[in-house]
Amino acid sequence: MNNCAVILAAGEGKRMKSKHSKVLCEVLFKPMLGWVLDAAAAAGAADRCVVTGHGCSEVEGYLQSRGDGCETVRQGERLGTGHAVLQAADFLSRHAGGSVLVLCGDAPLMDGESIRGAYEEHRKKGNAVTVISAVVKEPTGYGRILRTPQGGISGIVEEKNADEGQKAIREINSGGYWFAVDDLLSVLPKLPKNPVTGEYYLTDTIELLLEQGKKAGAFAAASEDVVLGANDRVQLAALNDRARAAVLKEQMLKGVSIPCTDGVLIGPDVTIGQDTVILPGTILRGRVTVGEDCVIGPNTLLEDSTVGSHAKLNAVQCYQSAVHDGVTAGPFVHIRPNSELKAGVKVGDFVEIKNSVVGCGTKVPHLTYVGDSDVGEHVNFGCGCVTVNYDGKSKNRCVVGDHAFIGCNTNLIAPVRIGEYGYTAAGSTITDDVPENALAIARARQVVKPMWVTSKREKDEG
Amino acid sequence: MNNCAVILAAGEGKRMKSKHSKVLCEVLFKPMLGWVLDAAAAAGAADRCVVTGHGCSEVEGYLQSRGDGCETVRQGERLGTGHAVLQAADFLSRHAGGSVLVLCGDAPLMDGESIRGAYEEHRKKGNAVTVISAVVKEPTGYGRILRTPQGGISGIVEEKNADEGQKAIREINSGGYWFAVDDLLSVLPKLPKNPVTGEYYLTDTIELLLEQGKKAGAFAAASEDVVLGANDRVQLAALNDRARAAVLKEQMLKGVSIPCTDGVLIGPDVTIGQDTVILPGTILRGRVTVGEDCVIGPNTLLEDSTVGSHAKLNAVQCYQSAVHDGVTAGPFVHIRPNSELKAGVKVGDFVEIKNSVVGCGTKVPHLTYVGDSDVGEHVNFGCGCVTVNYDGKSKNRCVVGDHAFIGCNTNLIAPVRIGEYGYTAAGSTITDDVPENALAIARARQVVKPMWVTSKREKDEG
Amino acid sequence: MNNCAVILAAGEGKRMKSKHSKVLCEVLFKPMLGWVLDAAAAAGAADRCVVTGHGCSEVEGYLQSRGDGCETVRQGERLGTGHAVLQAADFLSRHAGGSVLVLCGDAPLMDGESIRGAYEEHRKKGNAVTVISAVVKEPTGYGRILRTPQGGISGIVEEKNADEGQKAIREINSGGYWFAVDDLLSVLPKLPKNPVTGEYYLTDTIELLLEQGKKAGAFAAASEDVVLGANDRVQLAALNDRARAAVLKEQMLKGVSIPCTDGVLIGPDVTIGQDTVILPGTILRGRVTVGEDCVIGPNTLLEDSTVGSHAKLNAVQCYQSAVHDGVTAGPFVHIRPNSELKAGVKVGDFVEIKNSVVGCGTKVPHLTYVGDSDVGEHVNFGCGCVTVNYDGKSKNRCVVGDHAFIGCNTNLIAPVRIGEYGYTAAGSTITDDVPENALAIARARQVVKPMWVTSKREKDEG
Repeated sequence: MNNCAVILAAGEGKRMKSKHSKVLCEVLFKPMLGWVLDAAAAAGAADRCVVTGHGCSEVEGYLQSRGDGCETVRQGERLGTGHAVLQAADFLSRHAGGSVLVLCGDAPLMDGESIRGAYEEHRKKGNAVTVISAVVKEPTGYGRILRTPQGGISGIVEEKNADEGQKAIREINSGGYWFAVDDLLSVLPKLPKNPVTGEYYLTDTIELLLEQGKKAGAFAAASEDVVLGANDRVQLAALNDRARAAVLKEQMLKGVSIPCTDGVLIGPDVTIGQDTVILPGTILRGRVTVGEDCVIGPNTLLEDSTVGSHAKLNAVQCYQSAVHDGVTAGPFVHIRPNSELKAGVKVGDFVEIKNSVVGCGTKVPHLTYVGDSDVGEHVNFGCGCVTVNYDGKSKNRCVVGDHAFIGCNTNLIAPVRIGEYGYTAAGSTITDDVPENALAIARARQVVKPMWVTSKREKDEG
Repeated sequence: MNNCAVILAAGEGKRMKSKHSKVLCEVLFKPMLGWVLDAAAAAGAADRCVVTGHGCSEVEGYLQSRGDGCETVRQGERLGTGHAVLQAADFLSRHAGGSVLVLCGDAPLMDGESIRGAYEEHRKKGNAVTVISAVVKEPTGYGRILRTPQGGISGIVEEKNADEGQKAIREINSGGYWFAVDDLLSVLPKLPKNPVTGEYYLTDTIELLLEQGKKAGAFAAASEDVVLGANDRVQLAALNDRARAAVLKEQMLKGVSIPCTDGVLIGPDVTIGQDTVILPGTILRGRVTVGEDCVIGPNTLLEDSTVGSHAKLNAVQCYQSAVHDGVTAGPFVHIRPNSELKAGVKVGDFVEIKNSVVGCGTKVPHLTYVGDSDVGEHVNFGCGCVTVNYDGKSKNRCVVGDHAFIGCNTNLIAPVRIGEYGYTAAGSTITDDVPENALAIARARQVVKPMWVTSKREKDEG
Repeated sequence: MNNCAVILAAGEGKRMKSKHSKVLCEVLFKPMLGWVLDAAAAAGAADRCVVTGHGCSEVEGYLQSRGDGCETVRQGERLGTGHAVLQAADFLSRHAGGSVLVLCGDAPLMDGESIRGAYEEHRKKGNAVTVISAVVKEPTGYGRILRTPQGGISGIVEEKNADEGQKAIREINSGGYWFAVDDLLSVLPKLPKNPVTGEYYLTDTIELLLEQGKKAGAFAAASEDVVLGANDRVQLAALNDRARAAVLKEQMLKGVSIPCTDGVLIGPDVTIGQDTVILPGTILRGRVTVGEDCVIGPNTLLEDSTVGSHAKLNAVQCYQSAVHDGVTAGPFVHIRPNSELKAGVKVGDFVEIKNSVVGCGTKVPHLTYVGDSDVGEHVNFGCGCVTVNYDGKSKNRCVVGDHAFIGCNTNLIAPVRIGEYGYTAAGSTITDDVPENALAIARARQVVKPMWVTSKREKDEG
């Protein structure tokens, strides 16, 4: 299959009241354009060309950050959807003989299944164009699909040109299409300029193709959500709600318990195992994988991270890290990028882990910072420990051997190494390596000044 | 009243996609079976027998953990509701002469009031069986109650056997019943095997009893929620929502303010005083009591704990502990089991209290861990204090006398005792007892190396 | 314009089950009475008189705390709305010749625009009284507006006195009115006592004024919310929901992104800039200003604070403070009153800032308390630092110069001054000033006891 896709992403979206491009507005923390590009790829259109316009450099930057090789062309003047696709003529020519999927960059709920279904129809019927349509409850404002008795279509009529009978049609144009590339290229240059708006509309290709004796059809998507876009942020919030509900329902049906969905935001690229419970206020965004039998939440945020099975993450924020089986963490924990908590690690309250590996069964129970460190297995950190990884000039690493015991309020001044079974006394600042099995102590002896408080009080009051 | 109950809890619930028994699925953090057992007890059926099947050992484990003496019998093969009750024949024989309540273990919103109402009807009418019914908006899928002109019932017709007229009936079978034990025992062995499914249905007892000239009736519960069960986790989430809304409404009507119910989950065994405000993201689960005029939340989690009046708990997680009048805590506090915060205690941010008593008026304002400690009244903890309760081998206690002042970043190495009005200097590690009114200090003198930074920079750069 | 307002705030609200006055019940954290007073002022009625009754001293206390000069009169016995307004006769006399706005203190969604619209109508038509009405879907329980063919009104008929035709009227009385002061004063003393309730009703003024040949009219507010009050806390929650949805919609239309509104509570006195994102669980209450391009939340609470542009506040609680452009804070940060974080400050996890100024570009990354301090620019705090601002008797300030480096677990014993580029060694307790460019160190040397762990274990086991 030599298929490709052209994504229209030039619109401004004034009612968004934004300095940014409309297609970069996010649904479940993913730009709308990202949803569309992924749906196109999922439906087999690997070569994609994005037509940019408003905020084009920002859109180009986003595409570059995705790193999946999408091409772009710029539409200098915004002269309608037909004109937009025409900018991609060069890209289309390179895909001659194949089919091209055209999608709106701001209709993020167009799904791969609908696109694939439309493609099957397109191919089976030998269509020159197949509109992806939807049957909706409230068609007002959308272009209506005009069906022929044979099951093909005779055109699309816009709201303002529709007569009463046409207005009653509930099958509408999603703005997504499959075209035979060669047919599309043959009619694009012939599109008429709309006398009122001065724009060139892609929908007019249908009439031109039918005039050439080609076939036009429509494929109705299963969900009416495929047509949904957003013109302002109230509609954007509604899109988020719709996408959110769909993801949550799908997760539940797969065996994930969500006793209360309030504040639960799970992105489209998240996998969760059976019997895992998600508690309120939990956000899983980006690429996240969670195993079985976990309890995630309340108020937990995972971003681009993996979590094993039987883990409990309570009020944890975890970024770009890996948490293995049986880890418990929280409440109130911050796991910063490039960390790895191996199986059975216990992290308690008010703990930050950053750019570190923490070995199996190690405990970091409270008020501790482990940064830039390699910590062995079954280590015990007391309360208030600090890996002093920065001296104002450079960052260095601490290494803590298996079974070491780091006393409370210990400072480990990196670079430093604590040997296996090494032990540091509470309140010590450790500047030099501690050998295996050794105790390191660095503190002053306790001195008691009897009745000091009484004397001071008398002096103060006296 | 020699009444008893048989609870059917053998089902698997495949669509839950779970490794666990369906009746252990939780609604407001309480297994559905627990709701049913509590409702039966609340309605006077103290002796309860649970028929287990799928995941029976897990269910038995749960019953044991409840410790309220429920019996169990196992249903080896799942051959229908009639067969399930038959397994409890021995239990029933021991309750001869009384009435037995039969309930589904996975219909958690069956309430004590409905059960009691049905029992009144059952006794007054001298029925052999009284079905607990509900009048619902959407009866599809449920067994319909066939009423007689006299107000009794002539049977229950299942959806698939119902004619059009019967399908229009909106009074349905909840799956809960009162039986005269002797009558039930007389017909249970005679239940016919369903020719299609090979199962024995409890509803067939009605026909058999009527044939014997006994009376059958139905009692319509006030709420249609009594019939609700869950076959998958989407329905389980809906059950949670229903239960949650009911609890919240009841609390509000009693004088609790909940300005925004988002993320507020209050269990069925929670008591809250008048004029207390619950803020978003607050979970009260298990047995929780909160006094009057408190502010709880946002993002506070209380589990099996009591809170006095005039307390403020902001972003606190508190487990199995007691918080007295006028305590303020938060934001970001973790109170672990077996702690007691006496009246007027102030706990600030990033503080953990564990297995400790903290006396009246004591302040623990920030970044401190108080564990395994007995702290007197009006003590002041500085910031960053640690009770060093673990030496790698055993846990020991700290005792801090009234009016003591614990300087910032003090380590108290347990076992250790600070006398009344004792004072520790900031940064000290206290290994020995501090007498009353004494100052203890354990730190090195400050040394200043002038221009060290300049020299170092020059050296580094040089 | 010599206009004034009388606010009726004497009611008890028994079904609230509260020890407090009903008008002090809060909607979006602002007493209902506060909404009404602000709406009156926004509509040009600067001189306001509140008629208090139940809980009068508490209401008076609230008014005093507002400090905007509202007068009060007490209604000793509650004898109806007409009697209540009569208590303000003295206040009214001082505003002779003007117009008076009468509002219910417990209908918080009456908005300034509706009041102003009604005033325009009142003045243009030369009315003696203009009722603020609303056209509602469900009028049951409310007084219906009786319109004349000329567009004026002939009276208001209460539910219980209405015939079927009148009950069908959907334009109802909000309980808000504009009166010509002189006309109102002329009829108030003549109000008839209701034979059943023994009360005097303000609505009866309309008949008396019409009898005098004066004109009466009604002005229908754009939203039906203007009539909403709350008699119990379920209704109060509904009022909160209504107010919340309105505020959120308005913010979204202005360019604020709220991908999920769960737990998001934004008060009526909050301003947010374009392209700022508000994440779930975020509460902005009191007077809050947030700039453009910020990310606020999740689980962030701002109270009476200002935030610049490009700031990121993640799980932050911030009270009565100022956060400047480009500040990032969180997760898990507590900013207490009277703090100022200047541009580009970075505050990490588990940090408390209190009553301090923190200079541009300074970093406080973790587990640190900065209280009562003046911190310069580009300072770096290590982890676990404490400004020891309290010695048990008085609070003192720390001063930290630009570019200083405060080592991990440093105690700064206030009053103390760290000079520019001053450096403290990790684990030091700093009691004396540190000059510019100097290193201060106050810690014991590390001693290592080889094989101590092995020996101890043998002894313990021995």
